[in-house]
Amino acid sequence: MYFFNNNQNSTSSSSSSSSAIQVINANNNQGEYKTVVKNGSYVTSAARGIAVTTEDGLNAQSFEQAINELSKKFFSTKKYIFQEGQYLSATTLNDWLDRYSSSNKLGLNPVNNGKTDNSRNPEYLQSIEENDFMTEGSGSNLNLAGMTIGIAMNRTDSYTKTTGGTTYTQSISKAEMVAQGKTIASKVLARLRANKKIGNNVPILIVMYQNASSSSLVGGVPYAYYMSKSGSKISAWHNLDYQNLIFPEQSTTTGSVGSQDNTNFVNFEDDIEGFFPTISSATAQAHYEDKTLTGMKITVNTSFYSVSEIKAFSTYISEVGPKYFTKDIPITISVYASNQLLAVLSRSSGSNFKVTYLYSY
Amino acid sequence: MYFFNNNQNSTSSSSSSSSAIQVINANNNQGEYKTVVKNGSYVTSAARGIAVTTEDGLNAQSFEQAINELSKKFFSTKKYIFQEGQYLSATTLNDWLDRYSSSNKLGLNPVNNGKTDNSRNPEYLQSIEENDFMTEGSGSNLNLAGMTIGIAMNRTDSYTKTTGGTTYTQSISKAEMVAQGKTIASKVLARLRANKKIGNNVPILIVMYQNASSSSLVGGVPYAYYMSKSGSKISAWHNLDYQNLIFPEQSTTTGSVGSQDNTNFVNFEDDIEGFFPTISSATAQAHYEDKTLTGMKITVNTSFYSVSEIKAFSTYISEVGPKYFTKDIPITISVYASNQLLAVLSRSSGSNFKVTYLYSY
Repeated sequence: MYFFNNNQNSTSSSSSSSSAIQVINANNNQGEYKTVVKNGSYVTSAARGIAVTTEDGLNAQSFEQAINELSKKFFSTKKYIFQEGQYLSATTLNDWLDRYSSSNKLGLNPVNNGKTDNSRNPEYLQSIEENDFMTEGSGSNLNLAGMTIGIAMNRTDSYTKTTGGTTYTQSISKAEMVAQGKTIASKVLARLRANKKIGNNVPILIVMYQNASSSSLVGGVPYAYYMSKSGSKISAWHNLDYQNLIFPEQSTTTGSVGSQDNTNFVNFEDDIEGFFPTISSATAQAHYEDKTLTGMKITVNTSFYSVSEIKAFSTYISEVGPKYFTKDIPITISVYASNQLLAVLSRSSGSNFKVTYLYSY
Repeated sequence: MYFFNNNQNSTSSSSSSSSAIQVINANNNQGEYKTVVKNGSYVTSAARGIAVTTEDGLNAQSFEQAINELSKKFFSTKKYIFQEGQYLSATTLNDWLDRYSSSNKLGLNPVNNGKTDNSRNPEYLQSIEENDFMTEGSGSNLNLAGMTIGIAMNRTDSYTKTTGGTTYTQSISKAEMVAQGKTIASKVLARLRANKKIGNNVPILIVMYQNASSSSLVGGVPYAYYMSKSGSKISAWHNLDYQNLIFPEQSTTTGSVGSQDNTNFVNFEDDIEGFFPTISSATAQAHYEDKTLTGMKITVNTSFYSVSEIKAFSTYISEVGPKYFTKDIPITISVYASNQLLAVLSRSSGSNFKVTYLYSY
């Protein structure tokens, strides 16, 4: 799965060449990083495509977002310039992600013990992603000033007994995943520190991420991080309590995380469902940090699509929405009519939504 | 085609009942009309669904937008409350849109002359849409204070010689469409004035619209309007010079409408195409009024979708875009990666784009 590599051009391994380096988002708009463009092209990851496979697109997006958001806490978007990972090559990552074997002593997944039932050694590690954080040196040189390494772990591992045969699923307990993750992270950090181009003193943030199961309607979540200022010793992990929920929930327990938000969402849905004679429906992806709702992505479907109706509906949603949703939480609402996305409502904070209509001329 | 009717609840014909009338968009946000909600539901058109058929969705959206935008020039969004048409019923509209015959003396399309070649009488009229503009009276009553009637005309009329047989297309010249439209509009206005619920003195804006052909990638355009302050005489039409173009254009003539904008767009496309090693492409729908570009809807497709890449790409587009596009023109840019809409960039005026990301959690 992770041997997929779409790297279509041979990227030079040197990321600090002074030739035609251009920094975009120089004004640091909307809280995102400045990024690097070289000779007119975005500097893609040296291992581009390896962590991103079609079948786990949801996890891949969620994984990358988690790495990006956590990086912002340690590498300020005002000071650092983002660059996709240039230090771990596709070959290196493929070796690391593979099983340990006599021909691959670098493999971070356990040796194949030959079993094809639940006594088999599962693959704990699913992908590794590197992000580099640069600062401008003399001239137009960029220097590596920070790095984030995301390590995505499986809670379920799928396998087949014969090529093309039935797919079996092996569960991995949370405790087992965490323990294996710690071992893997220690090895990764030591290997990075041993790389002379990185060295001992570049701050490295390690983000541990738990993949959602393939049937999930939301991606996974990061569950721990460690900020290594220097050296390769990991002294204490910082645990994260993040959750992604889907509303409306099938069953909720009063007092559980999200139960009040789910009730609010169901009330919102009831409100907007009555707006048209034809049925409208709504679902939400809700994101929690430390049991607090920190963002929602809402999808609304309706079966009619006259321009006046969608305008009135979107306006109505933008007016009643704030009654149901905690203030200051970023929310995006996509309004689909007959499977066509016709309006996007968004707010980054505060209670007012801005509506963008996507009609054709 | 136009006998389609999705009106699932029986709407009362009285639109000024005082019971539970609620006006939404009371703060008149984003330049859109306030609209009417009655007993928690949007007041849909009495003829809901008739003008909107699946096969001409593009024209239907474009037609409704044209009516909406032209209405704003005569019925201020600050003063008037928008309500979908309540005076023309589905039955009435079906009769009007049908051919004239001994059993339907109200038909506005010409009699069937029995021919099945180019000597047949084509159906000139495709649809009629009514919008009502209300003001608040005493109590919470709403009074009809203005009306817009959109009349959509065909430049091509499709027909079959036998049920389910081959579809033939009959062309209608611009001059013929305009002449027939004038006759139809006069009859429509006279009939509306004869309706005692509307009367002689409610201002009625008539918008004449030319459908695009079914193979077009953009909708049609309004080509004339007449504002009737009172009475049923149409003294002089106001012609409109609107066009919708697609960029990049297959062939352009230097100096023709849009040729410089097309060049600018192609330069923009060249710029962003080089951003990723994988190919990106872009197309635009450009809207012109009096040969001046007044808005663009751009679609960008790229085949990769790592979060970092899309963020950098969207940021890049938002930075270079203003170099290529005339200032102060509203532009929406939809960024698709592998057929998934992941970012929407929009500006209503000025040169700065706001980016909304549509990733899942």
